[in-house]
Amino acid sequence: MFDENRFLTITPLGGLGEIGMNCMEVSSQDGSILIDCGLMFPENYHLGIDVVIPRFDHIISKKDQLKAIILTHGHEDHIGALPWLVKYVNVPIYGSKFTLALVEHKLRERGLLDKVTLIPVKPGKTLKVAGLKIHFFPVCHSIIDGLALGIDSPVGKIIHTGDFKIDKDPLIENWGTDLKQFKRFAGKEGVRLLMSDSTNIEQEGWSINERKIVETFRSIFKEAKGRIIVTLFSSHIQRIQEVLDCAKEFGRKVGVSGRSLGVNIEIAKNLGYLNVSEGDLFIDLNEMPVLPDDKVVFIVTGSQGEPMSALSRIVRGGHKQLSVHQGDTVLLSSRMIPGNVEAVTRMVDNLYRLGAEVCYDKMHSIHASGHAYKEELKAMLLATRPKTFIPVHGEYRHLVKHSRLAVECGVTPERAIILEDGQPITLLPVGIRFEEPVAVDSILVDGKGVGDVGTSVLRDRQILGDEGMLIAVLVIDEVTWNILYGPAVFSRGFVFEEHFDYLLEDAKCLILDVFENDPHASVDKLQDKIRSSLRRFFKKILERDPIIVPVIATV
Amino acid sequence: MFDENRFLTITPLGGLGEIGMNCMEVSSQDGSILIDCGLMFPENYHLGIDVVIPRFDHIISKKDQLKAIILTHGHEDHIGALPWLVKYVNVPIYGSKFTLALVEHKLRERGLLDKVTLIPVKPGKTLKVAGLKIHFFPVCHSIIDGLALGIDSPVGKIIHTGDFKIDKDPLIENWGTDLKQFKRFAGKEGVRLLMSDSTNIEQEGWSINERKIVETFRSIFKEAKGRIIVTLFSSHIQRIQEVLDCAKEFGRKVGVSGRSLGVNIEIAKNLGYLNVSEGDLFIDLNEMPVLPDDKVVFIVTGSQGEPMSALSRIVRGGHKQLSVHQGDTVLLSSRMIPGNVEAVTRMVDNLYRLGAEVCYDKMHSIHASGHAYKEELKAMLLATRPKTFIPVHGEYRHLVKHSRLAVECGVTPERAIILEDGQPITLLPVGIRFEEPVAVDSILVDGKGVGDVGTSVLRDRQILGDEGMLIAVLVIDEVTWNILYGPAVFSRGFVFEEHFDYLLEDAKCLILDVFENDPHASVDKLQDKIRSSLRRFFKKILERDPIIVPVIATV
Repeated sequence: MFDENRFLTITPLGGLGEIGMNCMEVSSQDGSILIDCGLMFPENYHLGIDVVIPRFDHIISKKDQLKAIILTHGHEDHIGALPWLVKYVNVPIYGSKFTLALVEHKLRERGLLDKVTLIPVKPGKTLKVAGLKIHFFPVCHSIIDGLALGIDSPVGKIIHTGDFKIDKDPLIENWGTDLKQFKRFAGKEGVRLLMSDSTNIEQEGWSINERKIVETFRSIFKEAKGRIIVTLFSSHIQRIQEVLDCAKEFGRKVGVSGRSLGVNIEIAKNLGYLNVSEGDLFIDLNEMPVLPDDKVVFIVTGSQGEPMSALSRIVRGGHKQLSVHQGDTVLLSSRMIPGNVEAVTRMVDNLYRLGAEVCYDKMHSIHASGHAYKEELKAMLLATRPKTFIPVHGEYRHLVKHSRLAVECGVTPERAIILEDGQPITLLPVGIRFEEPVAVDSILVDGKGVGDVGTSVLRDRQILGDEGMLIAVLVIDEVTWNILYGPAVFSRGFVFEEHFDYLLEDAKCLILDVFENDPHASVDKLQDKIRSSLRRFFKKILERDPIIVPVIATV
Repeated sequence: MFDENRFLTITPLGGLGEIGMNCMEVSSQDGSILIDCGLMFPENYHLGIDVVIPRFDHIISKKDQLKAIILTHGHEDHIGALPWLVKYVNVPIYGSKFTLALVEHKLRERGLLDKVTLIPVKPGKTLKVAGLKIHFFPVCHSIIDGLALGIDSPVGKIIHTGDFKIDKDPLIENWGTDLKQFKRFAGKEGVRLLMSDSTNIEQEGWSINERKIVETFRSIFKEAKGRIIVTLFSSHIQRIQEVLDCAKEFGRKVGVSGRSLGVNIEIAKNLGYLNVSEGDLFIDLNEMPVLPDDKVVFIVTGSQGEPMSALSRIVRGGHKQLSVHQGDTVLLSSRMIPGNVEAVTRMVDNLYRLGAEVCYDKMHSIHASGHAYKEELKAMLLATRPKTFIPVHGEYRHLVKHSRLAVECGVTPERAIILEDGQPITLLPVGIRFEEPVAVDSILVDGKGVGDVGTSVLRDRQILGDEGMLIAVLVIDEVTWNILYGPAVFSRGFVFEEHFDYLLEDAKCLILDVFENDPHASVDKLQDKIRSSLRRFFKKILERDPIIVPVIATV
């Protein structure tokens, strides 16, 4: 039974050192699986970037070994990078029903559905793949149908929690995180390795229970005299159910606006995850019946103040069917993601200017995080009693603090291991080995361009965005070196030309000066001199440094 | 005594509807004063903008009436726009000693000091100007020497709180907010008008007392084995004093890095506001003695993750004298301003990677806001019992919520008045009159350019920053319409040209197509066609839409 060749290598490709882009390879001697394949939303300094995905070279270079992709749940930071991977690897994708329904929709939209086989899994069943036997444990999260993985591996029992919180009193039966199942899997000995969600390690205590949210909703619905508008993360089916339940209880019809919400509600309804009463709870915005204000609630997209979302359009008067007026109540039932706080608070202020009352996270209990707080993470550690602990899903400080918690819970300090993306570790029958790092990266996706925008392009965008640009064009006779055209000067994002055209006239004079001072210089030299002369000028006059593109054409 | 011509007009020029840029004109029949003259730091969408200032046209157009500028305290959002105003108006500037010292430094640096007369004021003394008698009340805030204004006006008593919190147990004697002085001024009748700081109306209860911060500092200093690095707002002299006191108590020398900190500490020392022990508490970083790690503390700039600040340079290894290593403790003793959260948390993660322990607001009580929480605002309302209430210093939702609090505290609803910038209101001997709005604006300052960057330039910057740009140059013979040069294509911030030059080659072909399909079109028409053809192409191929500048030169 004891085989020296047995091993399990864990290779984090994303999500260890950042929030998002979760992706991890787990390999045994019989092959490998990929746990999650997520994207990350760009940070503010990622100018113009749509999404960020992990670098897949490592996976693609040994794709014959890859046997399966296993998805823990359907959030974008766990499934969003699939479209970029499935072009290169053709293995079954396993996940819960709802998770796969979201994947199916995503891949169909991009014409990639024929590339993949989607195989549903569920708690109570196991999956044998790549020398591993995988158990699925239901976990509570801010999306339904989330799964944690219990893996019987050649070197012992492994748990990967995925994203989770522990809801001791779940609203939807059987979909709380059942710690007993983890405990049973861990057995008397405890697991060999626990990998656990670090997102909320900095939050003390226990996360808010969803029942508290329902309580707040009910009191708001009870008081509201006008229309109610709710915005939330569009995949948060449980929260949507709570709004529907309140609507029913307080006799309001429900309208929905925003594409992603429509899609997700449809999917959830079809799979039976949304309990919609008989009778017409929903109303069609295009054929909206005339209803008193206190008989409707609208669920709309736009919780992050996205400019094209339904709520943003409502606020600026650009929504075809909906508007906000005095006496309405708007509920932002979601977290403000740090990069979006400015946009969201601007929206909130404008809602107040329109006369609405706005309820948001900071002021009312109308949102609960889907990630375990510190005491919940402790409960997971105590239930599974790991020999080795690797914190996952978090920025570096989260990983540090989560590993400290593991030590407090009995993991020996040298077995509480902080890995970052690209650092593989191998569990041997006895002992652990760190492997050579593999190449990882954050690949920037801009439109259809994947990886064509890198650091140098971002740096140019930074300057262009902050300072604007100026083009200077001059056509000269290649024989006589006489000026045939120009200098012409064009600017964008620099100064308001209509009022400050004298600056551009000065720039033209400077270009002529350069040319006259050194009439026999080469084109390259002239271009360099024009650039430095104009930069000096604008720095002195305006303390600005736009990108300057001198173009000298010889004909 | 009763004079029908008496009046007092309040004209907010900034700070009512935004946080920052505080500036208000108060006029009687005998002239006007300006209360504060602040700037606002740009939001994320203000690309490349350095600061934002109020529009001063209203003040300048009637500058003969302006008798004084009164400053409540020395923060940038109250004094920062002075350099742009003092060029146009020449009236005395009144403020506390420390406030004026900061103004003096600022104006000297810009060569504007000879334009102004600075006159110190202090609690207990009054100032008669513009038909008003102004009393000064000391208030507690996150900068020392803050003042609220009590104004005996022709139409009754007015209070403008400036920025304040109520510290019932101030660390520095006599510089808590003494509500009794406000109460005494208000008298039996209460004041005619209260204008009060709305910044923290959304915070329930009382703000944290500075003694709590000292307590945390002491426990951190007690435990720390390595070096301690503290970053904080550089004008927060009281907090700096607390660090100095801890340094003394725990036998650490103090090094300072960062220009603004050095300046402010010097000013405070010279005015006697910093209690520095005899002996050498401070060490000079340029001649740093060799000291054990547990014998030093460094106060450095960079609490907002500013890239050129001392702390950012330390983190990326670019600081000449200082570095961070295993076992050091870094204290971010300040609030993370929402727009800076990404930058600050990136810095925190990198500090952890270097092995430091980092204490910040979210996790430890090492920062206290300088603005009154809801219960403190209530205490101010109850102490002054205003007939009319105008919330100041806040975004729109803050003003709404503060006015509701005033109503709860006994102000009649129609006398709790929400004004925004540019909406003047006149208090008459009996009654109130709304005046015609005056022109206000947020003037964007970019380098030395004031107001030359407006909406259209910002829009270009947005596109340039998100999508980059492409220039297409073509020189044609004005007689034969033959192409003499080009098409040449240059891009910036668009794609990484080295790897994606084939896209630019395709673009050149498209330009030739346009030219050949319509060889006799005018230059303008050709340019338009080239632009739309290239936009279509890049949208289709890349889903991107860079700024395209076609330049056709005829020679």
